[in-house]
Amino acid sequence: MALPTLRTIGFIIGIFLITMAVSMAVPGLTSLALDHAEDLSAFMWAGLITFLIGLALVIPGRPRDSQLRPRDMYMLTTLSWLAVCFAGALPMYMLQHISFTDAFFESMSGITTTGSTVLSGLDDASPGLLIWRSLLQWLGGIGFIAMAVAILPLLRVGGMRLFQTESSDWGEKVMPRSHVVAKYILGIYVSITLLGALAYRLAGMDWFDAINHAMTSISTAGYSTSDASLANFSNATHWVAVVMMILGSLPFTLYVASARGNRRALLRDQQVRGFLLMLSATCLLFSLWLWANSDYAWLDALRLVTVNVVSVVTTTGYAVGDYTLWGGFAVMAFFYLTFVGGCSGSTSGGLKMFRFQVAYSLLRGGLKQLVHPRAVIFQKYNGHPLDEEIVRSILTFSFFFTITIGAIALGLALLGMDPITALTGAATAVCNVGPGLGPVIGPAGNFASLPDAAKWLLSIGMLLGRLEIITVLVLITPGFWRH
Amino acid sequence: MALPTLRTIGFIIGIFLITMAVSMAVPGLTSLALDHAEDLSAFMWAGLITFLIGLALVIPGRPRDSQLRPRDMYMLTTLSWLAVCFAGALPMYMLQHISFTDAFFESMSGITTTGSTVLSGLDDASPGLLIWRSLLQWLGGIGFIAMAVAILPLLRVGGMRLFQTESSDWGEKVMPRSHVVAKYILGIYVSITLLGALAYRLAGMDWFDAINHAMTSISTAGYSTSDASLANFSNATHWVAVVMMILGSLPFTLYVASARGNRRALLRDQQVRGFLLMLSATCLLFSLWLWANSDYAWLDALRLVTVNVVSVVTTTGYAVGDYTLWGGFAVMAFFYLTFVGGCSGSTSGGLKMFRFQVAYSLLRGGLKQLVHPRAVIFQKYNGHPLDEEIVRSILTFSFFFTITIGAIALGLALLGMDPITALTGAATAVCNVGPGLGPVIGPAGNFASLPDAAKWLLSIGMLLGRLEIITVLVLITPGFWRH
Repeated sequence: MALPTLRTIGFIIGIFLITMAVSMAVPGLTSLALDHAEDLSAFMWAGLITFLIGLALVIPGRPRDSQLRPRDMYMLTTLSWLAVCFAGALPMYMLQHISFTDAFFESMSGITTTGSTVLSGLDDASPGLLIWRSLLQWLGGIGFIAMAVAILPLLRVGGMRLFQTESSDWGEKVMPRSHVVAKYILGIYVSITLLGALAYRLAGMDWFDAINHAMTSISTAGYSTSDASLANFSNATHWVAVVMMILGSLPFTLYVASARGNRRALLRDQQVRGFLLMLSATCLLFSLWLWANSDYAWLDALRLVTVNVVSVVTTTGYAVGDYTLWGGFAVMAFFYLTFVGGCSGSTSGGLKMFRFQVAYSLLRGGLKQLVHPRAVIFQKYNGHPLDEEIVRSILTFSFFFTITIGAIALGLALLGMDPITALTGAATAVCNVGPGLGPVIGPAGNFASLPDAAKWLLSIGMLLGRLEIITVLVLITPGFWRH
Repeated sequence: MALPTLRTIGFIIGIFLITMAVSMAVPGLTSLALDHAEDLSAFMWAGLITFLIGLALVIPGRPRDSQLRPRDMYMLTTLSWLAVCFAGALPMYMLQHISFTDAFFESMSGITTTGSTVLSGLDDASPGLLIWRSLLQWLGGIGFIAMAVAILPLLRVGGMRLFQTESSDWGEKVMPRSHVVAKYILGIYVSITLLGALAYRLAGMDWFDAINHAMTSISTAGYSTSDASLANFSNATHWVAVVMMILGSLPFTLYVASARGNRRALLRDQQVRGFLLMLSATCLLFSLWLWANSDYAWLDALRLVTVNVVSVVTTTGYAVGDYTLWGGFAVMAFFYLTFVGGCSGSTSGGLKMFRFQVAYSLLRGGLKQLVHPRAVIFQKYNGHPLDEEIVRSILTFSFFFTITIGAIALGLALLGMDPITALTGAATAVCNVGPGLGPVIGPAGNFASLPDAAKWLLSIGMLLGRLEIITVLVLITPGFWRH
């Protein structure tokens, strides 16, 4: 890699690190304000170290006219998420007297908006630590939207090229240039967070819990301020969470289009419609099943199913009660739902709705082709033709997705996990959901007891999942390093 | 569907039924010869009924010049497997005083060469019943080869068009016309069976056991004459089984090419090489792991791993001991191996080697394309270009495969199975392997205790898996029935 390219990459990572360092003021000031001044020094030192490293990378400056090619973008993307993740771990390591492995796992789980945790005793944990975990997820969420909107379509990873150009419906005048889009997205992200905090407050949380949960809901991430997660709060908060998680799973560019006057942009989008339809149908049918097969009243069944299903599908990972106690069918259903994910261009992970829709339309077309072998079947998704490149890239993505989960599960099994923990742990990490299944890492469990090697393996899984796998895998192909 | 088409389909199914009726003479005569004359009447009556129904279908005659179109072939394929399966169930229903569900499940598991069983007490079962089960699998094996060689490539199902034309290596002179190929294949199938029976006999089985196991090995099917499966026989028989199962998993058209003078056809085939390499590496590494993590001597570890791995990968399903007791890693590994399958054009099921190889080459190409966005990457498999149609049809197949297993597993969970039984039961049925995992249907278990609805669901899974799923699914698309 040429020196100017390295300097550019270093410069950008430096900016990210300085942003992280500045962000550490938030938990620092929170510690002060909420009478936990003893925590201040950890955030100050971690902030200082992060700031100095960032500064060292920024000072050489960004070379003029240095254009990053796609191959440099892979490197930049992976390195910057890793760097930010290390920075995020630093204050937790200095604060909590937890191992560096645990701090790194917690930070990776935060930044990738996964939400698996190794910490317990959250209800009595220091407010600085709690707000830092939430802030990591909030920053990870907006960071991922930015990546999904600005970088992934260019990299042509996993069929994301479908979202490269504006949908023809929007028209040139509705979608402005990229830095304006970025400002809009940030504004919308902040606004929804503030409204969410207000709604949580009105639903009965105190301001601190409300702000934390607003940040971890919009980012579909799932850290809570209680070991019991949302079960610790009123029923009304569960419905607020449902709305917030869904808002976090829709394509943020469509919010921008709506805000700029295309009021029906969201409702006319094929992905959004499919997602909302699938979610409503799943929640309704599943609630009916639970109602018929348990002692819950209808409204309780509906609430418990909706909040947990939306939590898993949007890859948030809050848990309200232990749904694995609902029996084998529920366990199986939640395992499947782990893979779904929200819409592209949102904060959620998983396979994502558009890939299921494209697959569905390919399957329909495939069957049609078999019945009418000579017919020419032309397929579109959301107005874009499904050309061979998109089909291949979705194929590639799905296969690598499966292989990654399979390989991590096999690794976990080699480390001594039982098959359910291994398989669901791998799936929940790569899909950035949070809880797995089974007694260890299930919705009522915790990742603390896993061996260190398993935590590193899961951290790799979370990073791979967040960066749509191929962005990272490309770095370890021999072809990437030749020249 | 036009009347001449229906008559043609009926005529062909009639031929199959008459063949089944004639085949019932084998268990009938076996019963007589081995002093179980009391079983004769069941086979006679079942044979008579099957024969008369077959005759009724054949008598109207095959209309001249009636060509079956691809869409008629789907109907013919599915209906004939179903008809044969009902015929296969008949003698077992009349003989055993088992329910019709159990007889149908056992027959479907036989004909599709799956090998899951609801029967126990096999060691003392009547020889007529045992040989009928083995014969069902033997007929199912040759039937599937015929279908894979003659029909599936025409139907363009699941990338099978890759095998539509002769490999350019063979040259026109080496591969003769289809009815000659069919004769060759039958001859080779019979020869390997006879040699296998001799080898089993030399390895210590009596002739009856040797013949039964030869028939269920070459068909990679897995019914045994003992509840303990191959564990009931000498170590030498395990190695005979390994060789036989591998022989049953290679493309039979390549045996034909070898027999007609192209001696290196097998060894030069990309699928065969990949399959043997993958199998050797898996057995070796897995044996080393077992040897290091157990008290087994090296040769015992090698034998136990090899016979069980080859049994699962080739989708045979013999079990030698309960490998689920080897721990979580082994359970996970056997779960993955369930999906692999042998080569196309053989008797084995599963995803099959060539699809993994095509996927691998697409994944490599996909990564290369990301690094060199402007490069034109041209991909081949075994000399055939991987065009868009093949890529799409493999994509379609893999998705439907996953969806089918997922849906059946969800259905089993709804019927009350635990997640491991549901998931591995669905997988083992659709992949036509035989045993699942867990205490109920694992290698040491039996399908008898499942509820009837689960047995029907699994029977559907076996049929779908055997007919490469899409052949059946096409029948339930609305477009198929329009006109």
